[in-house]
Amino acid sequence: MSNRYAIILAAGQGTRMKSKLYKVLHPVCGKPMVQHVVDQVSSLGFEEKVAVVGYGAEIVQEQLGDQVSYVVQKEQLGTGHAVMQAADILQNKNGTTVVLCGDTPLLTAETIDRLLTCHANENAKATILTAVAEDPTGYGRIIRNDDGLVARIVEHKDATEKERSVQEINTGTYCFDNASLFAALQKVGNDNAQGEYYLPDVIEILKNNGETISAYQTPSFDETIGVNDRVALAEAETIMKRRINENWMKQGVTIIDPVNTYISTEAEIGQDTVIMPGTMIVGTVKIGAECLVGPHTEIKDSTIGDATVIKQSVVYNSEVGNNVTIGPFAHIRPDSMIADDVRIGNFVETKKATLGKGSKASHLSYIGDAEIGENVNFSCGAVTVNYDGKNKFKTTIEDGAFIGCNANLIAPVTIGKNALVAAGSTITDDVPGESLSIARARQTNKADYLKKK
Amino acid sequence: MSNRYAIILAAGQGTRMKSKLYKVLHPVCGKPMVQHVVDQVSSLGFEEKVAVVGYGAEIVQEQLGDQVSYVVQKEQLGTGHAVMQAADILQNKNGTTVVLCGDTPLLTAETIDRLLTCHANENAKATILTAVAEDPTGYGRIIRNDDGLVARIVEHKDATEKERSVQEINTGTYCFDNASLFAALQKVGNDNAQGEYYLPDVIEILKNNGETISAYQTPSFDETIGVNDRVALAEAETIMKRRINENWMKQGVTIIDPVNTYISTEAEIGQDTVIMPGTMIVGTVKIGAECLVGPHTEIKDSTIGDATVIKQSVVYNSEVGNNVTIGPFAHIRPDSMIADDVRIGNFVETKKATLGKGSKASHLSYIGDAEIGENVNFSCGAVTVNYDGKNKFKTTIEDGAFIGCNANLIAPVTIGKNALVAAGSTITDDVPGESLSIARARQTNKADYLKKK
Amino acid sequence: MSNRYAIILAAGQGTRMKSKLYKVLHPVCGKPMVQHVVDQVSSLGFEEKVAVVGYGAEIVQEQLGDQVSYVVQKEQLGTGHAVMQAADILQNKNGTTVVLCGDTPLLTAETIDRLLTCHANENAKATILTAVAEDPTGYGRIIRNDDGLVARIVEHKDATEKERSVQEINTGTYCFDNASLFAALQKVGNDNAQGEYYLPDVIEILKNNGETISAYQTPSFDETIGVNDRVALAEAETIMKRRINENWMKQGVTIIDPVNTYISTEAEIGQDTVIMPGTMIVGTVKIGAECLVGPHTEIKDSTIGDATVIKQSVVYNSEVGNNVTIGPFAHIRPDSMIADDVRIGNFVETKKATLGKGSKASHLSYIGDAEIGENVNFSCGAVTVNYDGKNKFKTTIEDGAFIGCNANLIAPVTIGKNALVAAGSTITDDVPGESLSIARARQTNKADYLKKK
Repeated sequence: MSNRYAIILAAGQGTRMKSKLYKVLHPVCGKPMVQHVVDQVSSLGFEEKVAVVGYGAEIVQEQLGDQVSYVVQKEQLGTGHAVMQAADILQNKNGTTVVLCGDTPLLTAETIDRLLTCHANENAKATILTAVAEDPTGYGRIIRNDDGLVARIVEHKDATEKERSVQEINTGTYCFDNASLFAALQKVGNDNAQGEYYLPDVIEILKNNGETISAYQTPSFDETIGVNDRVALAEAETIMKRRINENWMKQGVTIIDPVNTYISTEAEIGQDTVIMPGTMIVGTVKIGAECLVGPHTEIKDSTIGDATVIKQSVVYNSEVGNNVTIGPFAHIRPDSMIADDVRIGNFVETKKATLGKGSKASHLSYIGDAEIGENVNFSCGAVTVNYDGKNKFKTTIEDGAFIGCNANLIAPVTIGKNALVAAGSTITDDVPGESLSIARARQTNKADYLKKK
Repeated sequence: MSNRYAIILAAGQGTRMKSKLYKVLHPVCGKPMVQHVVDQVSSLGFEEKVAVVGYGAEIVQEQLGDQVSYVVQKEQLGTGHAVMQAADILQNKNGTTVVLCGDTPLLTAETIDRLLTCHANENAKATILTAVAEDPTGYGRIIRNDDGLVARIVEHKDATEKERSVQEINTGTYCFDNASLFAALQKVGNDNAQGEYYLPDVIEILKNNGETISAYQTPSFDETIGVNDRVALAEAETIMKRRINENWMKQGVTIIDPVNTYISTEAEIGQDTVIMPGTMIVGTVKIGAECLVGPHTEIKDSTIGDATVIKQSVVYNSEVGNNVTIGPFAHIRPDSMIADDVRIGNFVETKKATLGKGSKASHLSYIGDAEIGENVNFSCGAVTVNYDGKNKFKTTIEDGAFIGCNANLIAPVTIGKNALVAAGSTITDDVPGESLSIARARQTNKADYLKKK
Repeated sequence: MSNRYAIILAAGQGTRMKSKLYKVLHPVCGKPMVQHVVDQVSSLGFEEKVAVVGYGAEIVQEQLGDQVSYVVQKEQLGTGHAVMQAADILQNKNGTTVVLCGDTPLLTAETIDRLLTCHANENAKATILTAVAEDPTGYGRIIRNDDGLVARIVEHKDATEKERSVQEINTGTYCFDNASLFAALQKVGNDNAQGEYYLPDVIEILKNNGETISAYQTPSFDETIGVNDRVALAEAETIMKRRINENWMKQGVTIIDPVNTYISTEAEIGQDTVIMPGTMIVGTVKIGAECLVGPHTEIKDSTIGDATVIKQSVVYNSEVGNNVTIGPFAHIRPDSMIADDVRIGNFVETKKATLGKGSKASHLSYIGDAEIGENVNFSCGAVTVNYDGKNKFKTTIEDGAFIGCNANLIAPVTIGKNALVAAGSTITDDVPGESLSIARARQTNKADYLKKK
């Protein structure tokens, strides 16, 4: 939207978080709070987005990169002072500016859009996002006049008994005529106990100028929650979890226990996939249709095909095909490329490994730095010996090869097509296709050894 | 009960489920919804149970088998039309017919029985199962007359303001005089927006004939929930989970976190057994007394003895004795028979394997297609090599044998009584009892190898 | 506090628990209920604490040891009779006696202290701990007189309609002037349906003597819950879990899902540590700052340093340093001492093992009865062969050694500094420092073996 600007307040230290991490970087459903806010704002296509960050908050800038412009608030002198820092970038522009807090991760683009619409419809200079709080104690109350516009905001401590009974509260998110905002900010003083410049004072200044102040009341109080400590952080997580899970259930995904299923906002899940309890889907994950995922499975930044089963396992940064079976107790580490119809069984680890269609590693194996063809059988206890203490080397196994139990394949090494490596062999040299390779001692039985002993 | 019939409506596609699976086959606590309904009805011993299934719904018939009779509703022309399909089987019988929906998995036999009792006591031609809804929006309201009988059902859209304030709603489950039901169904028309034949119209027809219509109000609204989408499916799961878990807690089972414990309706659990969080007990499972199960354990279709501990593990289709310890991170695959006092430790897999009393496989082993005697020690990394790429073969280990670490037992092979297989050996031939078998190379130390290198 | 005594009623069998275990020994958050009560009382420094235990309840005495004195109630003749058993120890003392039930695990020292303060302030002979119950059905109601003191306690069954509307209930915890208590107990009769001696009768007797009876109403009904069956046990667990988790969140620990995180009352957790869902912290555990623990991890009686990551793993009775990475699917068994910067990967088990700084066991290993130096690489599948079927032996690995894949180290054995054990070797003799040790057969490739076959 042209002539639409956003200022995102992201400078607060959040002392009640008791953390070395900036408050707005604490994650909700795996994503920093301020990133949630920026994502929602970004989806509306604003012309300019300015984040107000604290002095030395490089880490906030690292997170947001070039998604926003930055201004630095060197001292924490209040929300009015924070918004004022954006003056250099915004004050000469015509249009509408939304001011948001970086600690309101649940706020949706839809609500911001409705705030803007209300602002435009009422021809207001400022519009407050409000909500009805079951217990409004501590919040600023919205006092409306007879025509439904805002007469004033009363802070809890200054409110009369009657005003305190008002349940409509100021959420701290606002929409302003941009020019009016910066003009009024010039007049905001800090003659108060904290010596701070408060943004709500702008409302009073505009009101005193005879301007129209409106309020858009969102029906969802939950959306407006500001996270100030880790108890609230966990509550925000719970609300967002419910929102995400309900969305996927409505899309045709079965989630056996939505309370005990953790899905990132970046995930996609196909129809008729079933997610069992204790499953965490983290980061950018795409899961196909008719899969069974979980229980107690963690999948991060990976792509999973259709009709694949992943139970009691961990999958990181990998690609998994269709009709694959993984687990229980398997660990797919980064850069694993697992083709259709592969079976990865219990206590198997893969890493930087390609497994071709129909290959199997059913038990107790490590497949690292390996390129494995189709229909290879990697038997129980067989391992790729990819590391000599200094460097990593590659193992290549061609189609149809059979690697026996507890075999060691000392990389670099190639096992040819349809070759057979005998159980218990340590393979140091390439094995030609169609060959049998064996490297083990002959068996000796010492009769009655134990009786003699 | 003689002269008692049930019609179970199971033909709905359930478009809001967004699923390839018929709605009534979606499971709750691991069992298809319609199976829950049939199980409850079956426990009452009705003379005839008829499921109305959709055209091509062979999969519903596969699920229910010969537990019910079937009629097919070829077109979805409404609930009245659905019930009408049962005419060939039921219309000439004397007695009482209950009509139930296949998507009400929480309904109990007890409630159905009370509905029947109310019907008989009131000498009614039809009795409606009703409940009090906290928010009745969307439901048909029950309007009672002065003597407490039903005056009529008013659909939400047709209701006056006063009628909408009624919280007693029609649950969609009914009890009818069988002859009256089928007679009235003949008169039900489809002169409505959807062009469908509605079952509730039967109530109005009977009422207009001067018949008595009663209503049994169940105190449990939850029981009557119809599942139309996956959000409701998850809610039904939560309610049934609570019901199952509370039952077992009252029977003397400790469930540390009933919210995070998933037990099938087919499970049995002995007194003083403790179930830790994240445990899933699936299908027909019998667990003895004084066991410790979980956390994060999945047991399916298995029998577990007394005083057995199973932690962070998976057990499928197996039998486990008394005083057994399994886990953490063990995988007991189908057809494992594990005797008393066995210890299966971490990263151990068994499959089609018998383990005799007191035997141990404590670490990193695979025991497949094996018959293992008593007091056998299967050391770390030892594996049964049961597969040559084409066929599976059997390993036999007699009482008291000791299988060394990382040993491969290439099946078919027998290790005799008290025999000792040296660590690191690959055993291809039988080992006689009391013998030591060894198959490994001698150690060579190359002094200062690394310095020279 | 001098002149302060506590009587803890711990003799009830708890038939509704349906358990072989005494009711008060059932754990909440891993600690027996009665121990919670004793811990809270102990923190107040009472002069004498007397537990009234049932006949033959040695197991309760084993649990509590010398934390309290014991008297035995041989027959279960009511709460008054139970308190009377403490006469020999307490009746001649001056001071104040609190009577508590061993099945109220949620009661806090703070509330007991406030009860004592109220008792002193009111100059009362008895003070009842009361609470407001949302549904007071079944509880004794507190009838207060005009000056706010207690007129009487009315049992539910004896209460008038008006009295039943009173929501302030008797929690069963009391504070007495000690001499008055034992004097009044002499007068308590058993002329009632159960033939029992009831402690609340003391209140009436004192009242009839003209003594002052006060009541301290705690704002937290939850605290006063008595656990009589396992449904209540699970509810108590849920409430205590919430209390513990909220405390840690306020201290600067992130708990992603407090509903699905189980932390003992004996745990300590450092700032900015993140606890993922499905984590159980059991017994006396100390976790440092900036760790990542979980998901689905169990840690019991262990110490964890700072910045350590433990995922999908189990750690028992061990010490883990800083910057350590454990898991997924690792099992740290008792007496593991894991130094800083160690990496324990998937499917690795340690037991009675010391791992020096920077050492790695990344996959599929068992390290038992071992002393491992710094910067040792214990490769995939390598195991310490610590058991010969009769005894356990020790493995020593010096700094910088490299143990190849699937190697067996047959203890007792020492691998010298920087030595290299070749993959697939079974090591029976010591390996000098800087040496290469190899014990495996040479590889033979049988060309076209499979074609010929």
